[in-house]
Amino acid sequence: MRTPLRDLDTPCLLLERPLFLSNLRAMQDSVARAGKRLRPHAKTHKCSRVSRAQLDAGAVGVCAAKLSEAEALLAAGVEPVLVTGPVVTQAKLERVAALRSAGRRLSLAVDSEEAARRLESACARAGAVAEVLIDVDPRLGRTGVSVARAPSLADFIGTCRHLRLAGLQMYAGNVQHLQDHAERRARSLELMGEGAELFRELRRRGFAMTVFTGGGTGTFDIDTGVPELTDLQVGSYAVMDVQYLGLGSREDPAAFGHFRPALRVLSTVLSANARGHVTVDAGLKTLYRDTPAPAVAAPAGGAYAYDWYGDEYGKVSVPSGAPALAVGDLVEIVPSHCDPTINLFDRLHVVEDGAVVEVWPIDLRGKSQ
Amino acid sequence: MRTPLRDLDTPCLLLERPLFLSNLRAMQDSVARAGKRLRPHAKTHKCSRVSRAQLDAGAVGVCAAKLSEAEALLAAGVEPVLVTGPVVTQAKLERVAALRSAGRRLSLAVDSEEAARRLESACARAGAVAEVLIDVDPRLGRTGVSVARAPSLADFIGTCRHLRLAGLQMYAGNVQHLQDHAERRARSLELMGEGAELFRELRRRGFAMTVFTGGGTGTFDIDTGVPELTDLQVGSYAVMDVQYLGLGSREDPAAFGHFRPALRVLSTVLSANARGHVTVDAGLKTLYRDTPAPAVAAPAGGAYAYDWYGDEYGKVSVPSGAPALAVGDLVEIVPSHCDPTINLFDRLHVVEDGAVVEVWPIDLRGKSQ
Repeated sequence: MRTPLRDLDTPCLLLERPLFLSNLRAMQDSVARAGKRLRPHAKTHKCSRVSRAQLDAGAVGVCAAKLSEAEALLAAGVEPVLVTGPVVTQAKLERVAALRSAGRRLSLAVDSEEAARRLESACARAGAVAEVLIDVDPRLGRTGVSVARAPSLADFIGTCRHLRLAGLQMYAGNVQHLQDHAERRARSLELMGEGAELFRELRRRGFAMTVFTGGGTGTFDIDTGVPELTDLQVGSYAVMDVQYLGLGSREDPAAFGHFRPALRVLSTVLSANARGHVTVDAGLKTLYRDTPAPAVAAPAGGAYAYDWYGDEYGKVSVPSGAPALAVGDLVEIVPSHCDPTINLFDRLHVVEDGAVVEVWPIDLRGKSQ
Repeated sequence: MRTPLRDLDTPCLLLERPLFLSNLRAMQDSVARAGKRLRPHAKTHKCSRVSRAQLDAGAVGVCAAKLSEAEALLAAGVEPVLVTGPVVTQAKLERVAALRSAGRRLSLAVDSEEAARRLESACARAGAVAEVLIDVDPRLGRTGVSVARAPSLADFIGTCRHLRLAGLQMYAGNVQHLQDHAERRARSLELMGEGAELFRELRRRGFAMTVFTGGGTGTFDIDTGVPELTDLQVGSYAVMDVQYLGLGSREDPAAFGHFRPALRVLSTVLSANARGHVTVDAGLKTLYRDTPAPAVAAPAGGAYAYDWYGDEYGKVSVPSGAPALAVGDLVEIVPSHCDPTINLFDRLHVVEDGAVVEVWPIDLRGKSQ
């Protein structure tokens, strides 16, 4: 199958395979050089085929944010899966216990005694044992237990006969998008250093923990400097977006050039009645609104700029001197923020040399439960 | 079926039926009093069951923004459908011609000779006749032909043997959310007045047009004052959101109280480790990020406030003195912007007296093509 882009119904989502594979290799190589492992996050791409490609490239497992994502991954044969967000309701915990009883390689992050108690109870009823990581709060106050209270939570988990404490998780989401590499580095090492100290302390107390997982794309070349960290939970690196492409890097403070923009929304010019801009069929329902604005990747060379034009439309500015855009022309746009944009689509069109060569279902789309 | 809210897997979308039905009645009554008709927009709710309820309440047809939405509505037996955005690609126009050949009541908005020429060609090949409206630009530059160039487009459509010009469409999206009712009124009447003058002029020239459709929820009680306007394309009134609830109205400049907040995202408290706030499982992937922020509808009386906490989570502030929220508690949240939020879900849980009584598929979800 080789479908030309002009035969696609727009707006739709493209994945440039050579750039995507180059991103997978670059991250895997970087992590391997540092003696770490990769546990990439599926919340970014919502696609079990992408997770499969990451495992094939050397990842030791994958992450999911929510249980329903993990269930979709397991249904596609992708495991082991770590659910990085708290799972607290009775119905969800019963599903976890059933999956564990069935021998599925699923582990959970836990950040409170209440959540641990509920999981213990569900596993006891099912005769299952769950592997858990303590989620440690990087002073963000979102999820995670504080470093100070983590030992007490570890002690509590130690009393639960159906829970096995496998390690720690710490994701400094508040650091990933700090623009300056030096500041990002200092702040991330400070926070992850607190997690590392906790990791050593709990091991000293006799907890046989083997995993300290965390980090994101913004700190992929920083957190590897934490000796205790065992694996990275990076997500966006696989497809990239304007937010991450604009970060400063160590080599070049003005560009985060380790990874390439593999993801685009393909759109069509619907209206060209105005001077200086045209209207395309991709609005905030297909390019999730975030900052900075999406970038026009093709046609190249025209310095075209995208801005949202309401729910259904986008405004593509055509600077004087740039080739005009006409009704029916195709425009490729790099999203501002990859995670919520991918979650708006049902399919990834995998592109090579300007044609679609495969279509991958976004089978975790809408799995926010 | 009566499913208690606590048995739902969260986050999920709730539609409070009594408030929803009261909104349908309020709009239908208002429009009828003014001698106008209702052609409500399905781009807001993305649900053919809601469109069906609007037709049952007296609407003369419905609108869709994109052809794929219209196709989903027709598949569910909802018609007539007007596609309010330009349809310009060969493949899409062939689908339109096929639907017209099959006798489906589908009409299109057209805003350029190029689009009209392509539609004429597709209809000629299929032996079909398409009913079209000229989309008139309310000086927004998004879609639509200018008032000045509209007569020439009408003349061109008049030469097309497979197109029948049924009227005009004009949607002043740039006016709907002006905070002050008097300003909104003045600006909308000025713009819609230009459309009305064009409507009279084209009728004078012999075009047998019967429809002048336009307007939105923000100007529902304003545009009815335009004598030429035949029907309103309102959408958000059916479910409402924080954006529209905060508008000034004629009766009360500080509140747009004609319609009630029928839509909520049901979420669960995942983490309660911090002082002054808890973390819920609804983030920017389930409450589309827009301004102003979503509002906490339940538990009521606590003056709780919602803010986004990344892709997966929300932060619910608990003021001192308000009842505490604990892990596992349910929180109901009114979205900032209804259209893109509904588009994130697959099902509407229809609620009455605190229990789910029906589940409606959001069958137009993701239909952005």
